[in-house]
Amino acid sequence: MKMQPRLQLALDHTRLDAALTTVEQLHPYVDIIEAGTILCISAGIQAISHLRERCPQHILVADLKVADAGGTLAEQAFSHGANWMTVICAAPLPTMASALEVAERYQGEIQIELFGRWTLEDAKNWRNVGIKQAIYHRGRDAQANGQTWGQQDLDAMKALSDLGIELSVTGGLTPTDLPLFSDIAVTSFIAGRALSDAPNPIDVAQQFRSAINTIWRP
Amino acid sequence: MKMQPRLQLALDHTRLDAALTTVEQLHPYVDIIEAGTILCISAGIQAISHLRERCPQHILVADLKVADAGGTLAEQAFSHGANWMTVICAAPLPTMASALEVAERYQGEIQIELFGRWTLEDAKNWRNVGIKQAIYHRGRDAQANGQTWGQQDLDAMKALSDLGIELSVTGGLTPTDLPLFSDIAVTSFIAGRALSDAPNPIDVAQQFRSAINTIWRP
Repeated sequence: MKMQPRLQLALDHTRLDAALTTVEQLHPYVDIIEAGTILCISAGIQAISHLRERCPQHILVADLKVADAGGTLAEQAFSHGANWMTVICAAPLPTMASALEVAERYQGEIQIELFGRWTLEDAKNWRNVGIKQAIYHRGRDAQANGQTWGQQDLDAMKALSDLGIELSVTGGLTPTDLPLFSDIAVTSFIAGRALSDAPNPIDVAQQFRSAINTIWRP
Repeated sequence: MKMQPRLQLALDHTRLDAALTTVEQLHPYVDIIEAGTILCISAGIQAISHLRERCPQHILVADLKVADAGGTLAEQAFSHGANWMTVICAAPLPTMASALEVAERYQGEIQIELFGRWTLEDAKNWRNVGIKQAIYHRGRDAQANGQTWGQQDLDAMKALSDLGIELSVTGGLTPTDLPLFSDIAVTSFIAGRALSDAPNPIDVAQQFRSAINTIWRP
């Protein structure tokens, strides 16, 4: 049986108070809360503590896109309350391994953020060091530049999925995009500004949920 | 005439107060001060403001290793007082371009941090969007794993340099490593724990300076 994808709220605010207002409104409608890179840089790792305090039951992701110093940054993320932390695919394997070692001490997980050049050979290596999750990303700048989802994306996702890597998907997603991914075992759909910048964020969250329920029947 | 490389202090502390103590002691002995990724994540972007306040004359680098949202993160870095900001080489070109656009508004610069897979074709593209600087990096995890400087590194540096890209060099550097780079036009040597964790940091800074003066006569 296919797992039903979860809905992940990415908080990419430059102000912690604005992020907390969004999370206050939307947390009952999402499964996973992500402190985005912009928020973590703007407010520092304390952003994670504040989100953990307000949402004790949610999976909490620190989207640090770690490239180096995997152990030190994982210690920062997990000790402040994160459940998952992202590492960029360009990071050396020892960085992934040291992040994973800390993650496991906290019963946490590491997600590889797919950006730029990577190969299936890399993905096998990530799998071999014990990584189980990746994030398939259409960057916000690439997206602003008109780059859209294509068959190449879907084929790459399928290949990763076949290696046993659970995929989250992000990059300007709207509820109408979801049918594109109906053949992929998606762990979560990540939405940021599509939710937080909407005139009625709760409506949009409910549209995401309804699309998920239609495509992946509960 | 070859420019003399500058000495850059990387602050990779998890506590802002510890970073400020190190900078208080070492700022007269270095040319460039870098708020490392660890510090920026731990203390948030305010770390840049604090360093700018204490070191109004130094070049100040925000080592954010930006992978996406180039404009937003550049605005954070430069509006808080950074002169240079790093972008990871895996970032899409539009991310580099949007970071650069903000940097130029502040008379700042963008440095590409070289991690993982990249090609000379990528480097030409970076140059074409207007990037002038890169950081050649031996990651701390790779380094802890025994990976050393080799001819392959030096050849890659030379090729980048020939494209007109100014190079900074980092990764467990000690003063005795510097002769390795005598044929490369190095913009700065970046030292972190080699300085801040030394029993006498000022002595080590002076050894770096003395090695630079010997190899690249002023």
